[in-house]
Amino acid sequence: MTDLLALPSDVQDLLFREARTANAFTDEPVSDEQVAAIYDLVKFAPTAMNSQPMRIVLVRSDDARQKLLKHMSGSNRDKTESAPLVAILAADTNFHETLPRTFPHFPGAKDFFLDDTAREHAARFNAGLQIGYFIIGVRAAGLAAGPMTGYDATGVDTDLLEGTGLKSIAVVNIGRPAENAWFDRLPRLAHDEAVITL
Amino acid sequence: MTDLLALPSDVQDLLFREARTANAFTDEPVSDEQVAAIYDLVKFAPTAMNSQPMRIVLVRSDDARQKLLKHMSGSNRDKTESAPLVAILAADTNFHETLPRTFPHFPGAKDFFLDDTAREHAARFNAGLQIGYFIIGVRAAGLAAGPMTGYDATGVDTDLLEGTGLKSIAVVNIGRPAENAWFDRLPRLAHDEAVITL
Repeated sequence: MTDLLALPSDVQDLLFREARTANAFTDEPVSDEQVAAIYDLVKFAPTAMNSQPMRIVLVRSDDARQKLLKHMSGSNRDKTESAPLVAILAADTNFHETLPRTFPHFPGAKDFFLDDTAREHAARFNAGLQIGYFIIGVRAAGLAAGPMTGYDATGVDTDLLEGTGLKSIAVVNIGRPAENAWFDRLPRLAHDEAVITL
Repeated sequence: MTDLLALPSDVQDLLFREARTANAFTDEPVSDEQVAAIYDLVKFAPTAMNSQPMRIVLVRSDDARQKLLKHMSGSNRDKTESAPLVAILAADTNFHETLPRTFPHFPGAKDFFLDDTAREHAARFNAGLQIGYFIIGVRAAGLAAGPMTGYDATGVDTDLLEGTGLKSIAVVNIGRPAENAWFDRLPRLAHDEAVITL
């Protein structure tokens, strides 16, 4: 059915069909310029009220990496220890502060999010969308992502994000995949399980 | 910085740079085959424990469209009334039932999600990721998406999704964009606002 798509077949493979969650990486570093190129691409994808709450926290220093490793679960710890680049993807619970600039035609936008609970909910939902875009962006850079939610989020927020208003949502290892970086492809739901018509 | 990406420049435009949230569409229908091609592409993108909780609920009948319109807010109602295809993107709170098949190497996966609150949280988070992938998939089909969160989710869940275990997260209009389908591009956060190094 690929002829129903405007996306060239080799790009379908790059972004979706052959792209895989990597569990091991080569030593090749991932540069700040590569991260910037990914961000400059995926920043255009939509969020509700253009809220853009996702923050990409690059864990570059040894000290930060060690702090993070303490909070990773089981086999995620080893992967995170050896990955060329590790990023904490977080939701900025103070995202409403930028709405007067990013959503200027609705001056009341910021006041729409004065309730802390509703604001954190919106931050987490829209950052979740952006994590989806970001994973596609990593693949668009020819790299592999290894997103993980198996870690102690409260510990990470306390040890690495204290005072920033950021709440971690996922940790992502990024790099060139090593040989045998993948497990077997797991089954996907059939069309009729995922698509329902009313 | 596009040379740092493996994705061809015209595909960067198709998926991100020139793709826009459409507010008006042509009359050209969107077929079930197009939706199937989109699903068959984006189903491969990752979710935690391969949980795949997103359901694409196509609102095809007049009756369902009228029920949905009642719950859309303000200007979203007109857009939703005229779009060639409208989909409710929902989280299946019973996603854990398929884990024995989709995550077979961890037989305890289903029991990991016996708590209703934690399971709904996981369903919503992973469905959020998948909504991000789905929007990219709509664009990969050469179509435009108009995702909306401005609607009464409780009303939609009661009137259209009762008894299914599905919780609506977003409503998306899909089709070929009409002329003047866009507002001006809104500002994106600068790199240094979104990318932080520790």
